[in-house]
Amino acid sequence: MTRIGSVTPTHWYNLAADFPEPLPPALHPGTGQPLKPEDLEPLFPAALIAQEVSTERFIEIPEAVREVYAKWRPSPLIRADRLERALGTAARIFYKYEGVSPAGSHKPNTAIAQAWYNAQEGTRRLTTETGAGQWGASLALACSLFDMTCEVWQVRASYEAKPYRRYQMEVYGSTCHSSPSELTEAGRAILASDPQTTGSLGMAISEAVEVAATTEGVHYALGSVLNHVMLHQTVIGQEAVAQLQAAGVEAPDIVFGCAGGGSNLAGLTFPIIGRNLTEGTASRVVACEPTACPTITQGEYRYDYGDVAGLTPMLKMHTLGADFVPPAIHAGGLRYHGMSPMVSHAVELGLMEAVAVTQEDAFAAGITFARAEGIIPAPESTHAVAAALAHARDAADGEVILIGLSGNGVLDLPAYEAYL
Amino acid sequence: MTRIGSVTPTHWYNLAADFPEPLPPALHPGTGQPLKPEDLEPLFPAALIAQEVSTERFIEIPEAVREVYAKWRPSPLIRADRLERALGTAARIFYKYEGVSPAGSHKPNTAIAQAWYNAQEGTRRLTTETGAGQWGASLALACSLFDMTCEVWQVRASYEAKPYRRYQMEVYGSTCHSSPSELTEAGRAILASDPQTTGSLGMAISEAVEVAATTEGVHYALGSVLNHVMLHQTVIGQEAVAQLQAAGVEAPDIVFGCAGGGSNLAGLTFPIIGRNLTEGTASRVVACEPTACPTITQGEYRYDYGDVAGLTPMLKMHTLGADFVPPAIHAGGLRYHGMSPMVSHAVELGLMEAVAVTQEDAFAAGITFARAEGIIPAPESTHAVAAALAHARDAADGEVILIGLSGNGVLDLPAYEAYL
Repeated sequence: MTRIGSVTPTHWYNLAADFPEPLPPALHPGTGQPLKPEDLEPLFPAALIAQEVSTERFIEIPEAVREVYAKWRPSPLIRADRLERALGTAARIFYKYEGVSPAGSHKPNTAIAQAWYNAQEGTRRLTTETGAGQWGASLALACSLFDMTCEVWQVRASYEAKPYRRYQMEVYGSTCHSSPSELTEAGRAILASDPQTTGSLGMAISEAVEVAATTEGVHYALGSVLNHVMLHQTVIGQEAVAQLQAAGVEAPDIVFGCAGGGSNLAGLTFPIIGRNLTEGTASRVVACEPTACPTITQGEYRYDYGDVAGLTPMLKMHTLGADFVPPAIHAGGLRYHGMSPMVSHAVELGLMEAVAVTQEDAFAAGITFARAEGIIPAPESTHAVAAALAHARDAADGEVILIGLSGNGVLDLPAYEAYL
Repeated sequence: MTRIGSVTPTHWYNLAADFPEPLPPALHPGTGQPLKPEDLEPLFPAALIAQEVSTERFIEIPEAVREVYAKWRPSPLIRADRLERALGTAARIFYKYEGVSPAGSHKPNTAIAQAWYNAQEGTRRLTTETGAGQWGASLALACSLFDMTCEVWQVRASYEAKPYRRYQMEVYGSTCHSSPSELTEAGRAILASDPQTTGSLGMAISEAVEVAATTEGVHYALGSVLNHVMLHQTVIGQEAVAQLQAAGVEAPDIVFGCAGGGSNLAGLTFPIIGRNLTEGTASRVVACEPTACPTITQGEYRYDYGDVAGLTPMLKMHTLGADFVPPAIHAGGLRYHGMSPMVSHAVELGLMEAVAVTQEDAFAAGITFARAEGIIPAPESTHAVAAALAHARDAADGEVILIGLSGNGVLDLPAYEAYL
């Protein structure tokens, strides 16, 4: 397998193999030295630690994971013909729609893989954090498929505003706590200093990591940011490449994906960037983030912690600071202070651009999209839609625009209601 | 086109062409005489009235409707391999999953068609009723695609318990009222006699029909029961037949579909019954209804009104009486007092069986299904799942079971939470 792209990928694609300069390593939070694989063993199974540092170009997807993927993959690539007519654009617009997964987003692509590798190594319980709840629900789903359970710390703002995701986790047999909680040292310390905090992913990560690191037989799973998570999501972009080719498009002219921790964006765009680097294509790639949490467009590129308590490795990334608490915007999945190191590296190398989108523009675009295409996009995804719509107004004749529609907005309807 | 079944149907299949005995006609509510097409003109466009009485075997699907269908159709037919292993059954189980539609259920299949025919004849506004809200949201979606709006009366029990569907209608630019409402004569009369009523589909239909019948330029749309609705849904079964054949199954041994007004059931099973009648297959077909609203298994087969106020034509159907108010069960889509005349006729002719399922058994089956297959079924669909699971326990080796999974349960998670 040498070319990137298949409608039913047998391998994940690893952009680390094709980066013109190597990715800066993660550093140990205590020593500041490059992280050793054994440093991660309290948290992750060996197979995922190996993927985290791998520079293999293709990594085989286990058969059991592909069996589950096949329940809803390949996800549809849809020509937005009705949207094109509504806009009167000269461009051809396609969207890759991850909302058909049982969790309604792209998150199960890595949740299934992470749960399976953990199950293979004997772990029966996972901890994690979640923002809007899409990741927590996805990991709960994945755990239920491999006879495991998980314990989820959900950012308080979303926990209180969006109870449906918690119910979803419970249907899958898992549990969900509001974060910060009284259940962990990290949570108690935060609550003591700021009892009214709306919470943040950084805080929730501290809680989930603490429990995994201090409990025998319990591992931790992260829904974004880390290299192995980006890797697992590349099924999205590989399918999209093959589906576009089947529609007669050798490569898209420009790709828009929303950026929170980076996993949906990486999943869609890394195979396309990989083709730019190795197959001579020239697709522009644009990360779309909220102006309320402008990690790439306003953050610094430096080593920072992934969490508030400084328990995680230090990662070289675009960051607003580990203690940054974003406003309680509706796109809960885009409220992380940092950005995937691989995405940050791609930006620094000029392989990817970034724009910030206001919440107002994002929802307006979501409504336009829903009324033309029928699908109500997740608030996260509307950031990519808004940037794509702005671009489409002046697009060249026949230009091909690809939008990553990372999820549906069915459980975010109160946010739309608030906007209307 | 002479055989039934295609992965991308170009025609709807009309079981009325193959019934061994003709379907009893609808009667005028005033005269008691067979209904004439012109009696329906205040409510429906001519094309739908023609379909209502058609005995043509195949009716072409308009190009514009097929363009919208293609956004999510063919819907997936999924082998429930993980569920089979969890049950330890000797059967092969497949499910046809309509939850991938933008509304999360099978309802858009007819909503798109009805909106398009109305738009073609110049109607710019529709009225309708809805139970759980899936139909109202689907019609709102369809209207938004053809530059129309709709006004929806939602059964009060669901309106209060499930606000997300109303938000969904609003995103699509439509409006939704709690029924009974003060906006209609029918609604005011019901509220005067029973201010605390939880509402019923029969009441909501009276309100929507009244407004359409008394307002120039406004038509009415029904989400189930009528012949043209059954017709539009047959894309489900035709796809399923072709998808099963592609999987090496000439015909399923037994098919389970949930039955409220009958449209999802008819859509899945009429093409299969049609093959039994004309192509020599021998698939058993089982309608699965709630014990709380046991229309087929406990109702009488006689002429009755479709609504409480007696505004609709009289239909020969299984009925619990037009004034029957079912308990506020979670499966809001199965709370109708009557049954599609075509489904009722099929039962009377011995072409279809029926069973009643308790809410308890239905939710338990839904949880089992979710934890094995990942998808959380709509509470309506869990009735079919429960009956299928009970059958699978003693199934013959290799027996093929087909389940109609009419929708996902994402917006019904509070119901699951209440069950857990």
